[in-house]
Amino acid sequence: MTIEVSILGGSGYTGGELLRLLLGHPEVRVKQVTSRSRAGKFVHTVHPNLRKRTQLKFVSPDELERVDVLFACLPHGETAPQVDRLLELGSIVIDLSADFRLRDPAAYETWYRWTHPRPDLLAQAVYGLPELHREEIRAARYIASPGCNSTAAILGLAPLARAGVIDLDMPIVIEAKVGSSGAGGEAGPASHHPERSGVIRPFKPSGHRHTAEVLQELAVCGRAPQIGLSVTSVEAVRGILATAHVFPNRELTDKDLWQIYRAMYGQEPFVRIVKEVTGIHRYPEPKILTGSNYCDVGWELEDLNGRQRIVVMSAIDNLMKGAAGQAVQAMNIRLGFPETLGLEFPGLHPL
Amino acid sequence: MTIEVSILGGSGYTGGELLRLLLGHPEVRVKQVTSRSRAGKFVHTVHPNLRKRTQLKFVSPDELERVDVLFACLPHGETAPQVDRLLELGSIVIDLSADFRLRDPAAYETWYRWTHPRPDLLAQAVYGLPELHREEIRAARYIASPGCNSTAAILGLAPLARAGVIDLDMPIVIEAKVGSSGAGGEAGPASHHPERSGVIRPFKPSGHRHTAEVLQELAVCGRAPQIGLSVTSVEAVRGILATAHVFPNRELTDKDLWQIYRAMYGQEPFVRIVKEVTGIHRYPEPKILTGSNYCDVGWELEDLNGRQRIVVMSAIDNLMKGAAGQAVQAMNIRLGFPETLGLEFPGLHPL
Amino acid sequence: MTIEVSILGGSGYTGGELLRLLLGHPEVRVKQVTSRSRAGKFVHTVHPNLRKRTQLKFVSPDELERVDVLFACLPHGETAPQVDRLLELGSIVIDLSADFRLRDPAAYETWYRWTHPRPDLLAQAVYGLPELHREEIRAARYIASPGCNSTAAILGLAPLARAGVIDLDMPIVIEAKVGSSGAGGEAGPASHHPERSGVIRPFKPSGHRHTAEVLQELAVCGRAPQIGLSVTSVEAVRGILATAHVFPNRELTDKDLWQIYRAMYGQEPFVRIVKEVTGIHRYPEPKILTGSNYCDVGWELEDLNGRQRIVVMSAIDNLMKGAAGQAVQAMNIRLGFPETLGLEFPGLHPL
Amino acid sequence: MTIEVSILGGSGYTGGELLRLLLGHPEVRVKQVTSRSRAGKFVHTVHPNLRKRTQLKFVSPDELERVDVLFACLPHGETAPQVDRLLELGSIVIDLSADFRLRDPAAYETWYRWTHPRPDLLAQAVYGLPELHREEIRAARYIASPGCNSTAAILGLAPLARAGVIDLDMPIVIEAKVGSSGAGGEAGPASHHPERSGVIRPFKPSGHRHTAEVLQELAVCGRAPQIGLSVTSVEAVRGILATAHVFPNRELTDKDLWQIYRAMYGQEPFVRIVKEVTGIHRYPEPKILTGSNYCDVGWELEDLNGRQRIVVMSAIDNLMKGAAGQAVQAMNIRLGFPETLGLEFPGLHPL
Repeated sequence: MTIEVSILGGSGYTGGELLRLLLGHPEVRVKQVTSRSRAGKFVHTVHPNLRKRTQLKFVSPDELERVDVLFACLPHGETAPQVDRLLELGSIVIDLSADFRLRDPAAYETWYRWTHPRPDLLAQAVYGLPELHREEIRAARYIASPGCNSTAAILGLAPLARAGVIDLDMPIVIEAKVGSSGAGGEAGPASHHPERSGVIRPFKPSGHRHTAEVLQELAVCGRAPQIGLSVTSVEAVRGILATAHVFPNRELTDKDLWQIYRAMYGQEPFVRIVKEVTGIHRYPEPKILTGSNYCDVGWELEDLNGRQRIVVMSAIDNLMKGAAGQAVQAMNIRLGFPETLGLEFPGLHPL
Repeated sequence: MTIEVSILGGSGYTGGELLRLLLGHPEVRVKQVTSRSRAGKFVHTVHPNLRKRTQLKFVSPDELERVDVLFACLPHGETAPQVDRLLELGSIVIDLSADFRLRDPAAYETWYRWTHPRPDLLAQAVYGLPELHREEIRAARYIASPGCNSTAAILGLAPLARAGVIDLDMPIVIEAKVGSSGAGGEAGPASHHPERSGVIRPFKPSGHRHTAEVLQELAVCGRAPQIGLSVTSVEAVRGILATAHVFPNRELTDKDLWQIYRAMYGQEPFVRIVKEVTGIHRYPEPKILTGSNYCDVGWELEDLNGRQRIVVMSAIDNLMKGAAGQAVQAMNIRLGFPETLGLEFPGLHPL
Repeated sequence: MTIEVSILGGSGYTGGELLRLLLGHPEVRVKQVTSRSRAGKFVHTVHPNLRKRTQLKFVSPDELERVDVLFACLPHGETAPQVDRLLELGSIVIDLSADFRLRDPAAYETWYRWTHPRPDLLAQAVYGLPELHREEIRAARYIASPGCNSTAAILGLAPLARAGVIDLDMPIVIEAKVGSSGAGGEAGPASHHPERSGVIRPFKPSGHRHTAEVLQELAVCGRAPQIGLSVTSVEAVRGILATAHVFPNRELTDKDLWQIYRAMYGQEPFVRIVKEVTGIHRYPEPKILTGSNYCDVGWELEDLNGRQRIVVMSAIDNLMKGAAGQAVQAMNIRLGFPETLGLEFPGLHPL
Repeated sequence: MTIEVSILGGSGYTGGELLRLLLGHPEVRVKQVTSRSRAGKFVHTVHPNLRKRTQLKFVSPDELERVDVLFACLPHGETAPQVDRLLELGSIVIDLSADFRLRDPAAYETWYRWTHPRPDLLAQAVYGLPELHREEIRAARYIASPGCNSTAAILGLAPLARAGVIDLDMPIVIEAKVGSSGAGGEAGPASHHPERSGVIRPFKPSGHRHTAEVLQELAVCGRAPQIGLSVTSVEAVRGILATAHVFPNRELTDKDLWQIYRAMYGQEPFVRIVKEVTGIHRYPEPKILTGSNYCDVGWELEDLNGRQRIVVMSAIDNLMKGAAGQAVQAMNIRLGFPETLGLEFPGLHPL
């Protein structure tokens, strides 16, 4: 049985990565890829890694036909107004924008300064993070695929939240160090190579929208503390390392943490615990995850003169586990395929 | 039918890349991977991208058992002295060192300042470049896998040599721009990050050993002119862009060149002609080939005030088409598997 | 009047940077530069930027003669045992190691697991951070030049500490993102270019020794809260961005913070407040500070659902304001020269 | 005596670098800096390294007043039409565009596809390369400052041309490896960081306009052979390494080459011969020249089976010796200042 899929908004980085994965997926046929501005051109003119891999051309979004799974990769705010049409076009819709990630319409007002046009549908969308919502994904009609920083932060913190060991009176500080592809494919002064190359640049020290997802999902795990997320741009194209600083509500040992993380991730196909005592690669690092769907998670426990701090590190490729890879993982779950199908690439070393 | 393979010398970058490819190859079972210094340790302690992918541990080279295909990734000069043992251990031996690449023992004296210990065997080894030696590879007992700079240079120049359009009285200048992984996994002052990062550094302006392979293989295609190869280190981990400057022996048009290159590469699974008139990616570029087995080839034709110059550009990932990928491609040919099996990864964009 | 200076330990990165600055300083003559392993060789064989700038050769440390100012750039732990000799050789000693930075011998036990051999002298050394200790530096016989992460963190936090607005019951989390030169000039597996290039790598998530200096100096400013410092390696050779997350003990406005920072840094020659509302360079960034002695400081104030967070960002070149530049600044203060003499280089843009 | 200077076109990278140099020049006062689009804004909003260094604001080009030296940093083709006005505004004009670099109007047709509007003035402009035209610069009214690739290539080749050892029947191939700043400050798809980062990208394999300058200036030194220039973009912001491949007309020894290069550059303040037999930095490398006005030149001599090849390497910072630094050097010569005044920065190591 081959599934027919299409990509709405296929000229961006997320759309291109989805296309790469879906072209290589043994159970999938890519039917259409849309781009209003590039309609009629071969997809490899925009995604040069796909030369000789496909003869697909972009079509206008107006030409979309019905498919089994429709992936929507539109800019935030452009999906919700046309959601009814998307639900007609796809038996299943997997939306990689932020438009249906938050259940609470008020959160869109707070974090996006945006009045959601279809709050009635928010409760029906499933937040597409398999490690927290696998069972709901199996039955979902509409999957809202998580944000990249959110994915890294939530996967780092969820085990602690579930285990109930977080001191909820203490804010959690999360620092995400990110590459340039997360800001998308549009050129601008800040992404001009001489300006962007080699920076260690505060990108969004406060008020990052992905905070809303972290708050929502930690609440799913128990109750969310205050969250202060800061995002710093560093020299990389792909990759996020999210470092979360957590204060526990009781004395913990390293062994406790091993048990807590293993309990949640021991059977997960795409989450690895990385915590070595020797060698170069002792903690999670995004570089070697490039192109893979893994989230690597590790931690360090420290005593700050009487108070314990847990430093949780989680690393992903923002275009894979942080976007396209996670969307394909959700599709696999939804359609009953092996969860890792088409996502087997392990990453490269050295890179 | 599953083929059993082992890797002799598996702790370096080439060995690690081979291991990644062979673990993902559907017709292969990796039996043993050797490392004298790491024997007993999990392979993922050295190759961190293979965490959760294999439970293999390094074994001592003395423990090697018989297999269908033995890949040898030893430093140059260490294979030839033990070649009889390797031929006992592997029904087929694929040697990624330089020890059997040159047919003429005198060339080892000239380029390696080394007296070959087994000149009697040189004629039996097949130079493992499928685009020039596919039929010989099908029957080979011992395959000498080509060098990285050689692969890029030969694939760029072979069509012109075969077509007989090179002015053999004019030297060909080849400039290879290379990443750091080609120099191997051993740390040293020149590879120390603060010294190596961001350089545009003459690495080997003259006398590079890979010149010998280019001379040999262009002679296979016709007759070789003088070749001056210069190698420059640039900021990249993987990747080679070889630019060759050729003077033709008769007036050529761009259409002639299209015909010449298409005639040789039109059916090749891993060579793409890249020559666009618009867009960002108009010529071959190694970055988007990272992890893929492609060699992208393009050219530009220019009139220098009365004399034509052909600028030929060819790009590869030095660890893939320049080493491990090409070795697996040769194995596939030798064993009658589809040539692209296990080598389907198209490369990433953006990266 | 020309001052005679020498550098003990001149073959490392800090020694080389000092040498560059001192050779360009109009009131200074560099008398000797030592390196035991390189004695007899021109200094430009190690510091290639100094070609044609000096004919100095390294001498053995045993050959050191008396000078006005002796700069000591030895590895930590090697200065203290020979401090009496250094005090004989230099009328003033400026020590860039950690050996005399901490006043409390117990802190060396805690953070360095080292029993200080000369605790009697700790109280006499002046911590060479001009912004906090300018008056003491003017009369100092022995100046302990601060650590790089410490400098960035302390300069970011000191105004808040002095103003008494930090909630001392809440730990301060500091995340320093650092380049590779801070780890020194010795090659090793972790600094091998293919391994180090492009990383976002947890370097020291907890327990970093520079924490001790931050605790000490914030106490100078008032009282120190608990400090959790995490250091992450990113792709850069020079540069530190330290981001500190502070919770205030009373409601603050952005205007309050402007007043607090301006009060302390308004007249400082090497601290700039960087906080723009438009443009690319809105916050401190180390890249454009490369080669300069500036510390740029900025902040963002955020309400976390009822609790304010101050995100303080401070950026330096770790070899300049974080090491050699700050040492020369201290020398200028000590000798009554204009504080910026020899430190006028503003940094490059683009870079 | 303080000289008054202004910069026409001060918002680009070359204008910014000039401004940095001129602000630090002890004999110069910067009167005005123009930018039509940024008029009224502080120059440090565009050149962030100049924060706290100057309170200058951009003015409209229409507001320019008379000065001793006017630096013109306009896009190519915009200077020539207004040259009469520039000559009124500046007692001396130093033009960093290409508009008056070529003496032969036909060369503009050939290389720029542009009919020069003022061919009458071409002969009066002096090509501002001090190493070839120092005496003419001393008396020049209008100085056409050379292009970046041209500077590197000419300085590498001029000694051989002057010595008459180049085989003029053999084309010279020049490969320039360049950073991103040479393409200017305007953002576009090709300079978008995810696309530009880490590339080894053919930028202009043939037909580069700077070829015209190399041909002209080698003719000044004797007679020019055919020149084939190829430019490749690599990961760097600043820096050019030009590698030229020359075939001599008679047998040469390495000692001959030392004599040839020393004869021309032995007394030059900004050209260094770099050719070491040991160490990391054996040949010219642009990285350590960043911010400095040096051109480092070296070579390697090789026998290609009967024919000698000279590989000449020359490295510069394209914004310094390739643009702003060279313009200030010419100003110093013209005004009788010490040639190195304001250009003393030696470059950084490590970087």
